[in-house]
Order: sequence, then structure tokens, then C-alpha cells
Amino acid sequence: MRLSHFNMNLVLLENKDFVDHDRVVIQGRRFKHLISVNKVVQNDQLVCGLLNDKTGTGVVTNIWKASLEMAVHLTDPPPEPLPLTLILALPRPKMLKRIIESVTSLGVKKIYLINSWRVEKSFWQTPLLKEDQLRKYMILGLEQSRDTVLPDIYQKRFFTQFVNEELFQISKNTLCITAHPKALSVCPSGVNKEITLAIGPEGGFIDIEVATLEKQGFSPYHIGQRILKVETAVTCLISRLYS
Amino acid sequence: MRLSHFNMNLVLLENKDFVDHDRVVIQGRRFKHLISVNKVVQNDQLVCGLLNDKTGTGVVTNIWKASLEMAVHLTDPPPEPLPLTLILALPRPKMLKRIIESVTSLGVKKIYLINSWRVEKSFWQTPLLKEDQLRKYMILGLEQSRDTVLPDIYQKRFFTQFVNEELFQISKNTLCITAHPKALSVCPSGVNKEITLAIGPEGGFIDIEVATLEKQGFSPYHIGQRILKVETAVTCLISRLYS
Repeated sequence: MRLSHFNMNLVLLENKDFVDHDRVVIQGRRFKHLISVNKVVQNDQLVCGLLNDKTGTGVVTNIWKASLEMAVHLTDPPPEPLPLTLILALPRPKMLKRIIESVTSLGVKKIYLINSWRVEKSFWQTPLLKEDQLRKYMILGLEQSRDTVLPDIYQKRFFTQFVNEELFQISKNTLCITAHPKALSVCPSGVNKEITLAIGPEGGFIDIEVATLEKQGFSPYHIGQRILKVETAVTCLISRLYS
Repeated sequence: MRLSHFNMNLVLLENKDFVDHDRVVIQGRRFKHLISVNKVVQNDQLVCGLLNDKTGTGVVTNIWKASLEMAVHLTDPPPEPLPLTLILALPRPKMLKRIIESVTSLGVKKIYLINSWRVEKSFWQTPLLKEDQLRKYMILGLEQSRDTVLPDIYQKRFFTQFVNEELFQISKNTLCITAHPKALSVCPSGVNKEITLAIGPEGGFIDIEVATLEKQGFSPYHIGQRILKVETAVTCLISRLYS
């Protein structure tokens, strides 16, 4: 995995990094990034967080050739999650990477990747859909936004079965929205409560899919006359709903 | 330039494409895209628009080996522009491409790329900053969102000079906002009027830059405790301000 050019905003720790109750040793990608991009030196204080746990600080106590040691002090809760469940028609792999990273950085914690008429069959073959691959992009999103809580990503390859049999349970007691460029009503803004948001592929859900979602309580809304790329639309919708 | 995998939502025409007052011949990238991605055939009706002018429809009247002919009928105005002037610290080239494309698709028509303390000097050397290069990404954004009006992009390599001598004129009678993660107030939403929005580089504007902007009437606002990539932040801010 290529190093990002940007400072790591949070060093995401795992239990296996701990060599003592308050002492970690970091190697590999994180070490390389901290040395070559963040340019850390002895005694630097960094923002740290334990995966799915608290955040705090780490002071660099030793730097060796391929690893560094920090004394960590983790006391604070991670940032609030976004109360949004994202139902996303599986995008092209390259776009999927960016979307997973960006929605993770925005605080989304539940993502359902679903099939839809306009999803190319080949997209389901990408190695990216393996758990350890998706995890990489989630981790980049967590590091970016100083969060520690990994999203759950579910893959649902049968649209009708998923919508008719599972979606009711997933979306109950939430505001249910289908993003649909041809909808007659404009998407609400500043909702700031539990939402389940369904977003189609490039070209949108087909009419019968919108109708199937509507039967499960999903109202179709547009966000203006401009057609946006899915990755732009996802960020726009989330920002609008929680502004 | 690689073909996008997605249907061209609008065929953007230029005056030089016209072989008659209502007849165009399309070659090159647009031809290849229409044939291999949109898979157009004789008599298909496509959404068209003339650069910086009206939109309408085109009917495919002839398809040859490397070009196609359409009878066009352009009657409608392009979508409303966004009343936003974007002041953006020059991002890394790869990110700049995506941001130019996405903000163009969102309807931004005035973009100032400016220097800032945390902008790497090398970014100003990228061939991407040549006018014909930036134009490519603007055109992708216009095709995506069915717009025809090219944004104006200005490059300003001296932060203090630009802010102190030019920004007042550019931003007068608009709401002036600096996006700043460390700001104390949260960014307003649903403003829906003329705005001038200044966005820093990865890592943000430095304090003295925020102060220099503030002297010109730019109030610093944050959009939550999460630190976002610039490309995500730009889309979030625009969506929030015009939701």
C-alpha cells in the first residue's frame, strides 16, 4: 500500500502493538509514514487511538531502524459516529476505495454494498471486496478523521431479496431515503437523526428498484438538477442530511 | 486522456463542430466515448450543449469510422450556476484534477488557486496548471452535470498580496467564510446566497493566514471535529452552504 503524502492525523493502534500496558512498538506502513511524512523525532507527541476503543496521546520514546516505541495514554472517547446506515449500489473498484475511505472519515459505521440493475457483474469479482482489502481503506479513513471505530461492511448480491427480506429490519425507526435524480421532491437537509440512505450506481437505480425500495418505506428525493458522480453525491447527501 | 467508464451525460459541443447551423460532426474522445461507452447507434437522441451556451438534443444522423454526425436543437439555458467563489489553497496535482472536476459538476464558476504556507512549492510546477490541462477536467465536470459554462480559474502565487490587494474586490457583497478546523464556530448551512469560501491545504491555513483573511472580512468556521481530506471537505462545505 502506497504511503499517503499527508500527515497521519492519528496513529491507529491495535492490541498486538502493545508491549506493555502503556507502551507500543510500531512497524511497517505506520512506522514508514510517521518517519517519512510526519517526520517524527524522539519525544514528539502524537495523537493515538486504539482500534474500536479510546483515543489519546503517544510520546515517541525510541526510534530504531524499522520500528518506533511510544508511551501512550488513551483517555478520550472516539468522535461520535454518524447515525446513518448507507445502502450503496456497488461502485467500480477504484471509486469504491475512495468512497469507503471518505464515508469512514465522515463517521459512517454501517455500509451495505448491494447489487442493482446497473451494477456491472464484474465489479463483484474485485479482490477489493475481500475483508482485509476493504479494511485498509477504512483504516485510512479512521486515521484521517481521528476515529477508531471500524465500520461494518456487508455485501448483498441479491437486490430484491435484500430489500424485501432484510431492509425493513435494518431501517426500522429511521428516516428512509432513496437518492434518485428523477425524484419529484428535494432531499431534506439538517435532519440530524437516524437515517437509512440508499444510493444507486452511476446512472441511478432503475424505476422498478426505486419502487421496490418505496414499498419498504424509502422515499425518493433528488438533490438538484445536476447529475453528480456517485462519490460526489454520497458526500453531498451526507453533508446535507447532517448540516 | 483516458475514457471514463460512464455514459457521457451531455455531449459538449464547440462552434468548430458545426458543419451547418444545426448539424455537427464529432470526432476524437467524444466520438470514442459515445461509441464505446454510451454505445450510440443511428437515430439515438442525446443530450447536447454548446460550450458557454444553450443545451438541447441531438439526433445521430450518421456514424462513420472515426466520426459521427448529429442534427442538434439547442433551446434551453444551462443549469443555474452556484453563486460561490472558491478560494482554494493549491492541492496536490492528483487531488486538484478531481476537485476541479467535482466543483465544476457542482456548478462553481469562479476558482482562485492560491498559495499558502503549507502548499508544497513543487505543486506550482505541475503541467496540470496549464490552461488546456485544467480545461480537460472542467469539461469532464460539465459533461457530468449537463452544464455548458466553463468556470474561470485564476492562479495566485502570493498569498498576502492576493488577500490584501485583490480579495476585497472579489468578495465584496458576499458572505465570506474561511473553512478552518480550529475555528470556534460551526459553519452555517442553507445560506443559499453569494458566498466567497476560502479553503486551506491539507493541514489547514496557518494561524497568521486565517488572521490575514479575517482582516478582509473572512470569518473562520469549522464543520465538526473530524479532519477531512480537502476534496471531501470542499464537497461537504458546498453541499452544506447550499442545502
